[in-house]
Amino acid sequence: MSSQVQENLVSSNEKYASNFKHGDLPLPPAKKYLVVTCMDARIDPAAAFGISLGDAHVIRNMMFTQAGASASDALRSIIISQQLLGTNSVLLIKHTGCGMLTFENRDIYQVINRNLGQGATGELEAQSFDFQPFPDLEGAVREDVEFLRKSQLVAKGVEVSGWVYEVESGRVRKVI
Amino acid sequence: MSSQVQENLVSSNEKYASNFKHGDLPLPPAKKYLVVTCMDARIDPAAAFGISLGDAHVIRNMMFTQAGASASDALRSIIISQQLLGTNSVLLIKHTGCGMLTFENRDIYQVINRNLGQGATGELEAQSFDFQPFPDLEGAVREDVEFLRKSQLVAKGVEVSGWVYEVESGRVRKVI
Repeated sequence: MSSQVQENLVSSNEKYASNFKHGDLPLPPAKKYLVVTCMDARIDPAAAFGISLGDAHVIRNMMFTQAGASASDALRSIIISQQLLGTNSVLLIKHTGCGMLTFENRDIYQVINRNLGQGATGELEAQSFDFQPFPDLEGAVREDVEFLRKSQLVAKGVEVSGWVYEVESGRVRKVI
Repeated sequence: MSSQVQENLVSSNEKYASNFKHGDLPLPPAKKYLVVTCMDARIDPAAAFGISLGDAHVIRNMMFTQAGASASDALRSIIISQQLLGTNSVLLIKHTGCGMLTFENRDIYQVINRNLGQGATGELEAQSFDFQPFPDLEGAVREDVEFLRKSQLVAKGVEVSGWVYEVESGRVRKVI
């Protein structure tokens, strides 16, 4: 039995595929850029940031770089995007109203302990698992951009810029 | 001076924001689900998977779980999505034509060494950095779904399903 969420995927996709005309796009992004933003449900990157199909890689994750995160999934994807698939510009876009602006590690651990029990919390503690909340939005954008600009895993010629998307207005503004 | 990519972001977003009517959506996803898919430029999750603004978290990354990846960014985002923001269904969607079907770690290291030099390669080697390529698409979908279903960091009631998106046809099909 598939749930309502799965039924929606199947029926929406049938409509999409029945009218699909982009089956011959190549693997490397045509406009050679990469957008890094949040998984937040209120963001539609293609629509809000003007990304046409085939033009750009889009990485979406709750959080991104910060201290010690050089081995992160996001960085791994960025390396692949740039080194194997030729992108040379990164737009890093955080947003207002992000959960990570208000949560603290302590709060998150408490919720996990309550909902999933001591075993789950212990697994996270054993890994010193850091959810990387950030209280300062613009500051976090600058920090992540500096991290990428300084990393020797990002080639010198790659352009990295940082932005804030306002979920209240749909507007994007440049930070750095 | 902003590049063409940045100019496109600004001008496209101006149009989007001038007609924006969703400024009051709450933080938790209305339909309580989470889509995990790839950063590939040929995927538009909102359009292809029928996701309306505010309905679902969308995580996009080159790769996902697999051996030893329990501390991954993706899992971190999944925990936040489920424990703090109430999602209870995960659609995990990999796709045909993915770069990670053909690359091997060895190839990726060679390219990085050539483009970025020994310092960059050394930094990755010091971390035993694994790009997690996968030769078997359906197998990788099953593996990731099993990983999530077994993880004690995912609550028992959460529904996890696995899918393949065909970039050639725009069609999605269920694997598990």
